[in-house]
Amino acid sequence: MKKLLLTGAVLMAIFSSAQKKYVLVMHGGAGTITRESMSAEKENAYRAKLAEALKAGYAEIQNGNTAVNAVSAAIVVLEDSPLFNAGRGAVFTHDAKNEMDAAIMYGKDKTAGAVAGVHTIKNPIKAALAVMQQSEHVMLSGRGAEEFAQEKGLAIMLPSYFWTKERFDGLQHILKKEKADSLKKTIQNAVLSSYETDQKFGTVGAVALDKSGNLAAGTSTGGMTNKKWNRIGDSPIIGAGTYADSLVGVSGTGWGEYFIRATAARTLAAKMEYQNKDIQTAAKETITEIEKLGGDGGLIALDRNGNIAMPFNTAGMYRGAVTEDGEIFIEIYK
Amino acid sequence: MKKLLLTGAVLMAIFSSAQKKYVLVMHGGAGTITRESMSAEKENAYRAKLAEALKAGYAEIQNGNTAVNAVSAAIVVLEDSPLFNAGRGAVFTHDAKNEMDAAIMYGKDKTAGAVAGVHTIKNPIKAALAVMQQSEHVMLSGRGAEEFAQEKGLAIMLPSYFWTKERFDGLQHILKKEKADSLKKTIQNAVLSSYETDQKFGTVGAVALDKSGNLAAGTSTGGMTNKKWNRIGDSPIIGAGTYADSLVGVSGTGWGEYFIRATAARTLAAKMEYQNKDIQTAAKETITEIEKLGGDGGLIALDRNGNIAMPFNTAGMYRGAVTEDGEIFIEIYK
Repeated sequence: MKKLLLTGAVLMAIFSSAQKKYVLVMHGGAGTITRESMSAEKENAYRAKLAEALKAGYAEIQNGNTAVNAVSAAIVVLEDSPLFNAGRGAVFTHDAKNEMDAAIMYGKDKTAGAVAGVHTIKNPIKAALAVMQQSEHVMLSGRGAEEFAQEKGLAIMLPSYFWTKERFDGLQHILKKEKADSLKKTIQNAVLSSYETDQKFGTVGAVALDKSGNLAAGTSTGGMTNKKWNRIGDSPIIGAGTYADSLVGVSGTGWGEYFIRATAARTLAAKMEYQNKDIQTAAKETITEIEKLGGDGGLIALDRNGNIAMPFNTAGMYRGAVTEDGEIFIEIYK
Repeated sequence: MKKLLLTGAVLMAIFSSAQKKYVLVMHGGAGTITRESMSAEKENAYRAKLAEALKAGYAEIQNGNTAVNAVSAAIVVLEDSPLFNAGRGAVFTHDAKNEMDAAIMYGKDKTAGAVAGVHTIKNPIKAALAVMQQSEHVMLSGRGAEEFAQEKGLAIMLPSYFWTKERFDGLQHILKKEKADSLKKTIQNAVLSSYETDQKFGTVGAVALDKSGNLAAGTSTGGMTNKKWNRIGDSPIIGAGTYADSLVGVSGTGWGEYFIRATAARTLAAKMEYQNKDIQTAAKETITEIEKLGGDGGLIALDRNGNIAMPFNTAGMYRGAVTEDGEIFIEIYK
């Protein structure tokens, strides 16, 4: 496998050309990620972890495994890293818990699995995969999903495993702000203020194309810092944050409520299926629709011919892709 | 308001004609509902309750209220009746609990609200509406959703309120069968056997068109008898069991897992939005896609011109509609 890491303008050019055939595309979240707010050390850490995830997924494809396995293997790497808002780095709810959602879908037969609101499962994407492959259901939630995961032999962790200082500080910052805001604003606006931070946007996702020509998409997230009332976002919702069929696979990241209302991932796929739009056009139009509703975020998509699209309307989005030859590309800023 | 109750072949002819302008369409679940399995008394009870629900929704429209209010008012009537698998008549989970899901969506601005896995909320559709109108979120679940509902002043009930003999007996029947089956089959197949009963199919839903020309769709359900692991079905999933935009509103009923995988409600709307298909064609094609995946059930849909579609691939579906003149039509069998 060739390892080629490029940055900046060169990369953008490569990403926007439709020449290469990609087999795996990933995101690590979109948000107010700017060059100014990022130290070289932090940027390198993100790039290295994204490359590791891409390699893990690529290895599955090279070994002739399914797109589903590639998606799961790639996402597990990011879930195990505290850098991303998924698995170990999940943000905290209002009650200082880590409450995670994940989904996976296989384009070949439109099978799907999802878990929502789980606190103890080390790798929610593996639980979603188990729901898909080992249950009659598509979506399990809360304690029930945890019991199912444990029954299937998946790793269950103590809350301390998911605790990271950065995320906990993020919650404290918002709670403080909320308290100050409550003197002059409603609770709703205080919740809204949490969107001002970068913390909601670390969702991770992957779309893979295997050697049999089948697509799969997966997404995993800790949701939104300071979320309340066991809120479920778009990531575990098939057709919103995650979707795959025989034409395209999609994973979203951003302000989940708007992705649900726009049925974002399915809308992108429907534009390809019903209007014969190319992946770039379909993806851009979908982001525009989310923006018109008032939302922001990004999408990654990979079609059956190996074309990718990675539009976003935020300052940055952690993103990367691998070609069928093993070339790795990673980008962060606009 | 004229009240005209027709049955049988006459009704089918009226339903399939595109002459009348409808303002409200409802379902009370699809399944193995046959003339042979239904007593005259039971059939009359279902018809009367559906008519009451249609009238409640129609009154909202006549009073100039929004499609959202009409949908909610109509569904509340069925939630309050033990006849339907929603609210008071919700089926039992494996652990003998009533665990309900609901969603509502307003086509005008694509706002939406949903609750999943709630045990104590008297009218889950009202909770979904409160999520839509009084929170920054689209989907709340479990205990958090219940706390939210209570905070918003919605009625909270003891478990005994939701207990009905018929549903409890339904669970016992399945548990007995599961126990017998477990000697020779896997748990998965035993769960599957629960689909053989009618109990999963009582989901209720409504789509309304208000005087301003806006559409809304809503769905409420107790899910599947004997469900485990806090399973979430298609009803509270925007784009699966519930969806509305400026063209059409949709509510589904049936084997939820297949409705999620087919992104059923959004698929129907996308066929209209992107392929300019009429509502009948779009609805029929969507049911065919669900069937191809292996699922069954039905859909109701109402477009902005007052045309309806109510296809299903089961033996029967409780369904009804009201015209703008207040004519009520109710049908049960194929």
